[in-house]
Amino acid sequence: MTGTGAGERMHALVRRLHPLHRSMTGDGVRQTLEIIAEEVPLTVHEVPTGTPVLDWQVPREWNIRDAYLKNRAGERVVDLARSPLHVVGYSVPVSRTMTLAELRGHLHTLPDQPELVPYRTSYYGDTWGLCLSENTLRGLREDEEYEVLIDSTLADGHLTYAEHVVEGSGAGEVLIECHTCHPALASETLAGIAVAVELARSLTAPRHTYRFVFAPGTIGSITWLARNRDRVEHIRHGLVLACAGDPGGLTYKRSRRGDAGVDRAAAHVVAARGGTVVDFTPFGYDERQFCSPGFDLPVGLLTRTPNGAFPEYHTSADDPGFVTAEALADTFTAVREIVEVLEENRTYVNLSPYGEPQLGRRGLYGTPGLDQMAILWVLNLSDGTHDLLAIAQRSAIPFAAVAQAARALAAAALIKEVGT
Amino acid sequence: MTGTGAGERMHALVRRLHPLHRSMTGDGVRQTLEIIAEEVPLTVHEVPTGTPVLDWQVPREWNIRDAYLKNRAGERVVDLARSPLHVVGYSVPVSRTMTLAELRGHLHTLPDQPELVPYRTSYYGDTWGLCLSENTLRGLREDEEYEVLIDSTLADGHLTYAEHVVEGSGAGEVLIECHTCHPALASETLAGIAVAVELARSLTAPRHTYRFVFAPGTIGSITWLARNRDRVEHIRHGLVLACAGDPGGLTYKRSRRGDAGVDRAAAHVVAARGGTVVDFTPFGYDERQFCSPGFDLPVGLLTRTPNGAFPEYHTSADDPGFVTAEALADTFTAVREIVEVLEENRTYVNLSPYGEPQLGRRGLYGTPGLDQMAILWVLNLSDGTHDLLAIAQRSAIPFAAVAQAARALAAAALIKEVGT
Amino acid sequence: MTGTGAGERMHALVRRLHPLHRSMTGDGVRQTLEIIAEEVPLTVHEVPTGTPVLDWQVPREWNIRDAYLKNRAGERVVDLARSPLHVVGYSVPVSRTMTLAELRGHLHTLPDQPELVPYRTSYYGDTWGLCLSENTLRGLREDEEYEVLIDSTLADGHLTYAEHVVEGSGAGEVLIECHTCHPALASETLAGIAVAVELARSLTAPRHTYRFVFAPGTIGSITWLARNRDRVEHIRHGLVLACAGDPGGLTYKRSRRGDAGVDRAAAHVVAARGGTVVDFTPFGYDERQFCSPGFDLPVGLLTRTPNGAFPEYHTSADDPGFVTAEALADTFTAVREIVEVLEENRTYVNLSPYGEPQLGRRGLYGTPGLDQMAILWVLNLSDGTHDLLAIAQRSAIPFAAVAQAARALAAAALIKEVGT
Repeated sequence: MTGTGAGERMHALVRRLHPLHRSMTGDGVRQTLEIIAEEVPLTVHEVPTGTPVLDWQVPREWNIRDAYLKNRAGERVVDLARSPLHVVGYSVPVSRTMTLAELRGHLHTLPDQPELVPYRTSYYGDTWGLCLSENTLRGLREDEEYEVLIDSTLADGHLTYAEHVVEGSGAGEVLIECHTCHPALASETLAGIAVAVELARSLTAPRHTYRFVFAPGTIGSITWLARNRDRVEHIRHGLVLACAGDPGGLTYKRSRRGDAGVDRAAAHVVAARGGTVVDFTPFGYDERQFCSPGFDLPVGLLTRTPNGAFPEYHTSADDPGFVTAEALADTFTAVREIVEVLEENRTYVNLSPYGEPQLGRRGLYGTPGLDQMAILWVLNLSDGTHDLLAIAQRSAIPFAAVAQAARALAAAALIKEVGT
Repeated sequence: MTGTGAGERMHALVRRLHPLHRSMTGDGVRQTLEIIAEEVPLTVHEVPTGTPVLDWQVPREWNIRDAYLKNRAGERVVDLARSPLHVVGYSVPVSRTMTLAELRGHLHTLPDQPELVPYRTSYYGDTWGLCLSENTLRGLREDEEYEVLIDSTLADGHLTYAEHVVEGSGAGEVLIECHTCHPALASETLAGIAVAVELARSLTAPRHTYRFVFAPGTIGSITWLARNRDRVEHIRHGLVLACAGDPGGLTYKRSRRGDAGVDRAAAHVVAARGGTVVDFTPFGYDERQFCSPGFDLPVGLLTRTPNGAFPEYHTSADDPGFVTAEALADTFTAVREIVEVLEENRTYVNLSPYGEPQLGRRGLYGTPGLDQMAILWVLNLSDGTHDLLAIAQRSAIPFAAVAQAARALAAAALIKEVGT
Repeated sequence: MTGTGAGERMHALVRRLHPLHRSMTGDGVRQTLEIIAEEVPLTVHEVPTGTPVLDWQVPREWNIRDAYLKNRAGERVVDLARSPLHVVGYSVPVSRTMTLAELRGHLHTLPDQPELVPYRTSYYGDTWGLCLSENTLRGLREDEEYEVLIDSTLADGHLTYAEHVVEGSGAGEVLIECHTCHPALASETLAGIAVAVELARSLTAPRHTYRFVFAPGTIGSITWLARNRDRVEHIRHGLVLACAGDPGGLTYKRSRRGDAGVDRAAAHVVAARGGTVVDFTPFGYDERQFCSPGFDLPVGLLTRTPNGAFPEYHTSADDPGFVTAEALADTFTAVREIVEVLEENRTYVNLSPYGEPQLGRRGLYGTPGLDQMAILWVLNLSDGTHDLLAIAQRSAIPFAAVAQAARALAAAALIKEVGT
């Protein structure tokens, strides 16, 4: 279904989005959404600074044009042009000449990973800073003065997020959400966006409506929730996508409910693909907001290696070279399989429940392409309380084979769908 | 309780039943039932071809008189007289001369077990075939013509099954069922019959009524269920017996309910005897029909090595030499212990529930032959929600000692039976 | 919290109580209670012989003044003055000269532990006996007569028990019970008393009322229950303390309910301290009575090495040298931690449940001394169904940190206590 084509296409998108200057707000986010909109149509929302959203307010908008640290020789030893990570997100403007001693409190490095530049923000701190490698820092001279410039604006403006909707035939919605706020983190941020875009492209006439939300972390999902409080009751299932492109295995973190439909579907798929399933924790990505106790939505988090669990996390090493087309394709395949379970999972009742029905005269005995054990399991467990996913798990037969058996049995009028 | 006498008696019955020409219907089944009736009285039921039974109809009756493959020299290279397995069950009559090439589609062998003859049927196929060893097949000549004869009849007649009932003092019934349809499979078919017969002989004035059903697999239990739909509500517990004579360990497959009384009793006994307990699957023997969702009866399957899990399964190697008197006796002992739990398991309420009662003045303290811990456990857990089996499992005290303690406590009016 | 002071103080109490002649009734018990009353005020109850108590009657009172076995040379080869264990509890008076052969049925030893004197009683046997080491017995001469004297009285009198109550601000009671009936068993009996006394001293203005009961085993708790049947409904939690001073690890035995509040609290504390948690059994100490099915109180048993599981159990080797101040302090710390959970455990509801509240503007983000993950967990799970203990267990964060986070969140009006 995916082939190398999808993996390469997703990787190209990651590479294209990587150099942009994203933050919680600002033009880097808008440029990101414009590129996504070349792939799938987006509705972009601009929410003014100061708008009350749940317990919060939409913050000021931040934009960055230039940032550097220049030595006496006029060389930019730190230069935003080399990486968006070099400036602390939401830094206030600064233009000064300072000694290294004065600068130190504003310089962020990773002493244990001396070649890497860290990712740092100071959203609500009204301060500024530069990020650089420990090796670069070690090359600076104690007795020298440096010119520091951060050409940023932090002013009333807007928070920007976007939606793409694939309408389904039924009443339920599936929410797919990615954070858009991190600059230059290829697997952590961009891989999830690329998988979401690929999923959106792949959906044709689904049963559920699929709503894709691209928004900054925390404040973005809080803003979306504040503006969509009537909509959340329609959300049947949801997935947050992040850390989606590294070579490690899949990890699914359950929703707060733990046994919601998406939890069962994702646990089934991820476990079958050799991945790991972990319980909900109130720390991570926007599932924190969707799973706050007032909403308690059935939204889980799908990653490969989880946030904080790989050394490249939140550093300049999380670049497009860290992401592989194979990993992106594998994440996409897992998401597709989860979606197939969400689409195809149904509950049936056996219309011939006394003894086994005679399958031979209905062409359901030994039929090539039909899994005979799946036929027997669906007949036996279709009592209105077991859905097809439960039957697949109990029988250890792949969901697709169980769903196929159910379709054949329904066509033969031996089972009938009930409820949902 | 069993001794070698029971084991040898059961083995003798297996040997006596082994040569008969059993199939789904026909005189081989009738002869089988006649031999069983020498041990325990049977009520034999004959149900006419075409009778509607649940989703099925009673099929035509099949009888076989002779079958062979004769070479040009007049030698019977395959001969029904040597084994009932040599003819495919329900083969239509045939009398022809054919080349080996023409014959091949009608000859069934086991290439991986070249010395063995397979067991095959074609109940609803209106075709014919012979079963032989791969070695025999290899000895046939490509350039030779063979005379094939199957002297069978497939015509309106009857499906034959039988019942033996041991009346109990209470209202509940225990169903014990064995399939009678397989020719010359000693452990798979005949050992279960022998154990059932031995159990029937051993029951005297039980609490429950024990109903033994000897019927062809699938269509036989479907016919019985169709003719006993009012009776099934009385079935409190049930066991299907099959694959009961091989030297491997015991296996109990739970009913569809999973935690029915018979499941708890059999799991307790089989686990204590070092056997294996597995969950229900809708594949196996007639528990498939009893556990169809419309009936959902509390009927499990007791075997030694399960169907399909031993290399002799459905081959000529499943002969009386494969069955041992020790294995038969061990299966019988397990069934007896399960029956004892079904008979003795009760729920009590403590009549002196505030503090421990003073046991000494009632002769229940330090009494030889009474398990003091069993006394304390029965007193503590007799609150109307724990039956004796639950107490035995929680306390890890053998069921018999718990039941004995309960009898002593009931005699001292410290506990009283409730409900059932 | 405890330091070596508490451990040494408890050990001193064990040493002081060790020489007294305790039994089910009598002056040894009264002297024990008098010494305890020097530490914490006691209300002493005297219940007359013959008083009906549940299924029992208060027995006669037993007192012992002297007991010995004297050889022909006039030496006391067994002498009560050397250990209270030398006389079988509740021995009737005797003063005779007997051969060793006549004596043997009255002499109790431990052949496998030849240096130790066993602990024996015969409460309801109207017999007598002496306990001695196997080595002493082996030194007696077959051909010699011995003078045996037991100067005891067994007559109408009283059963004595005592209570100490620390009133709490709330309506619930916590029951702490120790048995007082065993002579000269330092860890088995006296360590539990010492820990209870230390706990009583440590409580100041608790939420719950703490009721300490010092009573003889079995008949004492039965008497207490009989006289307090109206009170038991107020018991929210309870602990029986015994075997509290040996160097082994902690063991908590759950109440009959298995998941009562005290079970969850004690399991959490004991597991975190590397101890063992076991299921209820109707054998042990007075939890047997509190957990009889009529009362079914939430009372567990806290020990170090459990009764019967250490070789010194019920022998003269269970002396003050077997008990360590460190072990006593560790038991006390565990009890204090359990009490802290019982005191501090509450259920809250999040007052800002839609999305995460903005913690920064409330001084709850990155605040030194506050566990940020505990803050997030309490917010996420405070929906009226998870108490703080459940949150601590789910998050694997220490209870104290969770409770502290909850206090900070409650002070910020982000959560509100509900029910209890």
